[in-house]
Amino acid sequence: MRTVLISGLGLIGSSIARIIKQADSTIQIIGVDPDDRSVDFLMAQLVIDQRRSFAEAAPLADLIVLAGPVSVIIEQINELVSLSLKPDVLVTDVGSSKVKIMAAATHLSARQVAFVGGHPMAGSDKVGSRFGRVDLFSGAAYFLVAQSQTDTQLNQFKRLMAPANVNWQMIDAKAHDHLVSELSHVPHIVATTLVNTVAKSLENNPLGLKVAAGGFKDTTRIAGASPEMWTAVALSNADEITRDLDQFKNQLSELQAAIKRGDRQRVFEIFEAASKIRKSLNH
Amino acid sequence: MRTVLISGLGLIGSSIARIIKQADSTIQIIGVDPDDRSVDFLMAQLVIDQRRSFAEAAPLADLIVLAGPVSVIIEQINELVSLSLKPDVLVTDVGSSKVKIMAAATHLSARQVAFVGGHPMAGSDKVGSRFGRVDLFSGAAYFLVAQSQTDTQLNQFKRLMAPANVNWQMIDAKAHDHLVSELSHVPHIVATTLVNTVAKSLENNPLGLKVAAGGFKDTTRIAGASPEMWTAVALSNADEITRDLDQFKNQLSELQAAIKRGDRQRVFEIFEAASKIRKSLNH
Repeated sequence: MRTVLISGLGLIGSSIARIIKQADSTIQIIGVDPDDRSVDFLMAQLVIDQRRSFAEAAPLADLIVLAGPVSVIIEQINELVSLSLKPDVLVTDVGSSKVKIMAAATHLSARQVAFVGGHPMAGSDKVGSRFGRVDLFSGAAYFLVAQSQTDTQLNQFKRLMAPANVNWQMIDAKAHDHLVSELSHVPHIVATTLVNTVAKSLENNPLGLKVAAGGFKDTTRIAGASPEMWTAVALSNADEITRDLDQFKNQLSELQAAIKRGDRQRVFEIFEAASKIRKSLNH
Repeated sequence: MRTVLISGLGLIGSSIARIIKQADSTIQIIGVDPDDRSVDFLMAQLVIDQRRSFAEAAPLADLIVLAGPVSVIIEQINELVSLSLKPDVLVTDVGSSKVKIMAAATHLSARQVAFVGGHPMAGSDKVGSRFGRVDLFSGAAYFLVAQSQTDTQLNQFKRLMAPANVNWQMIDAKAHDHLVSELSHVPHIVATTLVNTVAKSLENNPLGLKVAAGGFKDTTRIAGASPEMWTAVALSNADEITRDLDQFKNQLSELQAAIKRGDRQRVFEIFEAASKIRKSLNH
C-alpha cells in the first residue's frame, strides 16, 4: 500500500485522509476535489500530498476512497469501469445509502476490480475540509457491505483506518438502507421540514426564530448540513425514505388526534414511551 | 418582600428558588411539592427554607410562583381564588402555554389579586430539582403576559429574578401560544414521534438504535423530557398545536413527494432553504 486516492475532500473525505496519514505517514495521498480552497488547505496542512484529476489519479492508486455525494460516487464508479487500474486495487466509498451504489459497483466487480461498500455513521452540521478530524468517527458504527474485496484487502483497509477508532459492522445493502433511512435520512427530512414550517409560520413575527431555545436548536441542528449532499442522499434512498415517512406521518397523526380529542391517557403513553427509549440512549 | 411561595420544585421551580435566593438571601422561600426527595434535597441545600401545604403557605406569601405542570397551575389558580391572600401579593406562573392559564387567572384578578403570566423559554431534557441552576434561563426569552399586576409588583419580581439574566418579553397570550407551539411544542411532538416510529420499525433489528449517531441524538434529545409535563403542555395548547401540525404535515408531504418523483431541483431548494435558516441561528 503506497498510494491512496481520496475523491471528495469534504468533512468525511478529509477526515479519512487525516486518519490514513496518521496510520502511515509514508503513504502518498492524492486528493481529488473541484474546490481549490479545500485542496490548497489540505496540501498546506500536509494532509494530502498531491492533487490530480480523477482519471489521472485512479490508475496510480492501491486504494480508492470515493467520498463525494452519492450521485458523484455512482458516476465515479461508472468512470472507473473504463479506466485501467492496478490489479490489487480496492475501491470503497462512504455513501449514506448503499443499494444503488452496490448495484453500480457490480460492473467494477465484473471486471475483477475489488469493491467494498462503506459508510461511517457519523457526520456533523459542519461541512468542509477544515472541520475534518481524525476522531470524527470515534466510537461510531462504520458499515461495510461486502462485494468483491479479499480478506487481505479488507484487513489492510481496516488497519489504515485504525486511528479512527470505529465500530466496524458488516451489513447487507438493503438492511443498511432501511436502518439509515430511520436513523438518519428521515430525521434529517423532519428537521428540515420543521425549520421551513416554523420560518414560514413566523415570518411576520418580530420575535420569531430569535427566541428559539436550546430544544429547537438541538432538534433542527442537522438541517444546517450541506443541501447538495442531502439531496443526493435523499434521492438515492427514495423508496425506503418514502415508506418510512408514511409510517412517521401515521404515528404523528395518531398523536395529533389524541391531543385534539384531549385524550390525556393516550398522549401520556406516547410521550412516556418515547421518553423511556430516548433516555436509554446515551446523551 | 419577605416570603416567596414556589409550588412545583422541578427543574424550573428549583431554578427560580436558586435565583431568588441569590438575589436576596434574607427572603424566606416556602416550597410546595408532592415529592419528598426534591423538598429534602432543596432544604439540605438551603435553597428553600420551609415546606408547607399549598393552602397553608399561600396566605403567608408576598409572591406566589406556580411552577407545576400547566394542569396543576390551573388547579392552583382556582384554589387561590378561595384563599385569603396578602393584599399586595403577586401571583405568577411558568406554564408553557398561556391562553388557558390567563383565562383561569381572570377569576383571581376579579378578586383584586394581582396576576402576571410568565414563561421562561428554556428547559432541558434533564428533569428534577437536582438539575435546577441559577443560569438555566441565561440569555433566554422570559415571556410575561400582563393581566392585573402593578408596575411596582412587576419591577420587584424582575429585581428578584435579576441573577437569571433573562431577556424579558411582554407578549399577549394568543401570540405566545402560537409562538411556542411552533418553536417548542411541535418540535417536541415531532421528536417524540421520531423516537417511537424508529423504535417500532427497528424493534427486530440487532443494531437498531444502538448505532444512532449524533444527528439522531440531537434531533430527538427533547423527547427524553418529562411525559407528565408535556402531556399537560400539549393538552393546554391543543388547538394551536393541531393547526401547526397540519402545516408541518403538508410541508413534509411536499418534500416526500419531491423525493419520490426524483425532483432534484425541488428537493435541493427545500434542503437549501432550511440549511440557510438554520445556519443563521446561533449554534
